[in-house]
Amino acid sequence: MQVLHMNKGEGKTSYAKNSLLQKKVILIGTRAVKTAIYNILTEVQPDSMDVADLGCSSGPNSLTAISEIIRIVDAASDQLRRPVPELKVFLNDLPGNDFNNVFKSLPELYDKVKNDYGIEETCYVSGLPGSFYGRLFPTNSLHFVHSSSSLHWLSQVPLGLEPKVGFHLNKEKIYISKRSSTSVIEAYQQQFHEDFSLFLRSRAKEMVMNGRMVLSFMGRGSIDPRADKAGFQWELLGRALMSMAIDGLIKKEKIDSFNVPYYAPCAEEIQLQVEKEGSFIINSIEAFEIQWDDVDLSGLKESCGNFLSKTYRAVAEPMLDSHFHLGPEMMEELFRRYAIIIDDCITETTSKFTQLVISFIKKG
Amino acid sequence: MQVLHMNKGEGKTSYAKNSLLQKKVILIGTRAVKTAIYNILTEVQPDSMDVADLGCSSGPNSLTAISEIIRIVDAASDQLRRPVPELKVFLNDLPGNDFNNVFKSLPELYDKVKNDYGIEETCYVSGLPGSFYGRLFPTNSLHFVHSSSSLHWLSQVPLGLEPKVGFHLNKEKIYISKRSSTSVIEAYQQQFHEDFSLFLRSRAKEMVMNGRMVLSFMGRGSIDPRADKAGFQWELLGRALMSMAIDGLIKKEKIDSFNVPYYAPCAEEIQLQVEKEGSFIINSIEAFEIQWDDVDLSGLKESCGNFLSKTYRAVAEPMLDSHFHLGPEMMEELFRRYAIIIDDCITETTSKFTQLVISFIKKG
Repeated sequence: MQVLHMNKGEGKTSYAKNSLLQKKVILIGTRAVKTAIYNILTEVQPDSMDVADLGCSSGPNSLTAISEIIRIVDAASDQLRRPVPELKVFLNDLPGNDFNNVFKSLPELYDKVKNDYGIEETCYVSGLPGSFYGRLFPTNSLHFVHSSSSLHWLSQVPLGLEPKVGFHLNKEKIYISKRSSTSVIEAYQQQFHEDFSLFLRSRAKEMVMNGRMVLSFMGRGSIDPRADKAGFQWELLGRALMSMAIDGLIKKEKIDSFNVPYYAPCAEEIQLQVEKEGSFIINSIEAFEIQWDDVDLSGLKESCGNFLSKTYRAVAEPMLDSHFHLGPEMMEELFRRYAIIIDDCITETTSKFTQLVISFIKKG
Repeated sequence: MQVLHMNKGEGKTSYAKNSLLQKKVILIGTRAVKTAIYNILTEVQPDSMDVADLGCSSGPNSLTAISEIIRIVDAASDQLRRPVPELKVFLNDLPGNDFNNVFKSLPELYDKVKNDYGIEETCYVSGLPGSFYGRLFPTNSLHFVHSSSSLHWLSQVPLGLEPKVGFHLNKEKIYISKRSSTSVIEAYQQQFHEDFSLFLRSRAKEMVMNGRMVLSFMGRGSIDPRADKAGFQWELLGRALMSMAIDGLIKKEKIDSFNVPYYAPCAEEIQLQVEKEGSFIINSIEAFEIQWDDVDLSGLKESCGNFLSKTYRAVAEPMLDSHFHLGPEMMEELFRRYAIIIDDCITETTSKFTQLVISFIKKG
């Protein structure tokens, strides 16, 4: 059986090749998580450890991070010859998240923990709904905070760019683009800075001294927010929407008044906000360039455009739906066009995205 | 507006009269909860208080207990002139519970807490799926445990009475009845004692010294488990099933092999188990006789039978469904018959049920 799996693992449709990108992202995060947990165990030495995964989402990956964290706590305790601390794990996401789906997989996680690491009755997982842009936990209670692929989402569309305003600052675009005016960029930056500093203030109150936090999310490699790559996916989705408008399928004004509540910051912006807020030390900040091509697209039996179109549809459909009120057919058409545009436009440069992984220490 | 509501409140269809039973049960519980919380605040004096509601279920009542507890903590802190402790609240139920539904009402609860009690950012509610017949929380972490209408459910059908066994001990019945053999009663008692002592052992590990626990569930007033009232609802549901069997709509063997995972203990059984386990002191144990008639049935525009039939259908349908595989029409027919049988059989005595409210102190 194992040899079969290994052979299978070398083929084009293999799991190993098809999940290379996700694996890469997880491995990148894992290194920072390992360091953080090792330091908590040596510096804080808790008997019971409170851990939060912020923006857990639902679906097959919602327990991946927590499962890794449990494994690392176990291994690090072993290495340090310390008893494994009891783990109180909080899975957080917005109240609309499908927690029922997440909870269905919990018995499997508990079985895995018990069988793989021989840990029994030392791990307690709960779901905590609410926005991480605000308080979620009692004062001085968290030892470790983790969040992956969530902090590039803003709490709202930036002020001045919301659909309500009659005067549209960002016409024919849905995010910062090459020819965006300074006021568009400032609106996005202002919103990100407010959100991120509220995030830091909230976590600062909740975390214990010498507690650790590892955040991983999409950022940009260059200082300039107008750079090609920074908003590549939204630039092209904007183009797909515009092509629909040209064909009379969407009103152009609807696109003018639509902007995504997303922001990809650069490392320098993060550092500035962390210094301003003052409760955390950045232990490490890394920007990884990850190539979409790392996913063996031939194994997916579809084009890069189809793959990315599906990926972004899963993320963007609810907000597009609530703004444009497209029916199912028009939504289908939009993402069909999006896939074609991606395949037409993707280049060596734009086929990469930047993943920031930042590790924080809570000051005393 | 307020006068209108008050007038309305005196009519036959009024909320006040129609929820009298629930209100009564809540008020009964509230007194014990008040005492418990007052004692935690004076004896344990926690800055942050961990509270669990075990078997929260889903629906309009799932946040009622927690909402009451928050109010009481606020009022008691005021009275004691102490700062209100931060509350970490865990809503527990089995993993199959609809937590999404519970979480939808949370923003409303937070608003209420903020507006009514002026408490802000001091209450953090999460959902914790799992069976309370086993560990759910880390060692020494809970200050207050509450559970209402849950502990009369056993962890499983008693050993020897499960559907698998070919030889049926409890023919034509689905719970202990007047003519039940000693082995049926012993099987039920054995299962309850095992479950309840596991419950106590688990909570004993999880609760802090001088922590408090208030449990409220259906019990029986008499020592004899064969007493008329103790299993009235199941006795009559058994009769409804048998009438279906007589008419050839259900196989009689299916009824012979079916038993409900329910047990209504008397106060003495509880006391015995608590003494045996040894970690808790019973602060108070009360048995309340509550009359179904307290619900103004004329206001419901239906018979007592219809009302109780609906109530028990909501509770029993999933387990009936998985055992009998009745279609929707036969299920409808079963509960139509059940309603008629209730109206035929209900008497002064059987129209009352016993609610046990027990308050525990965790020993040092």
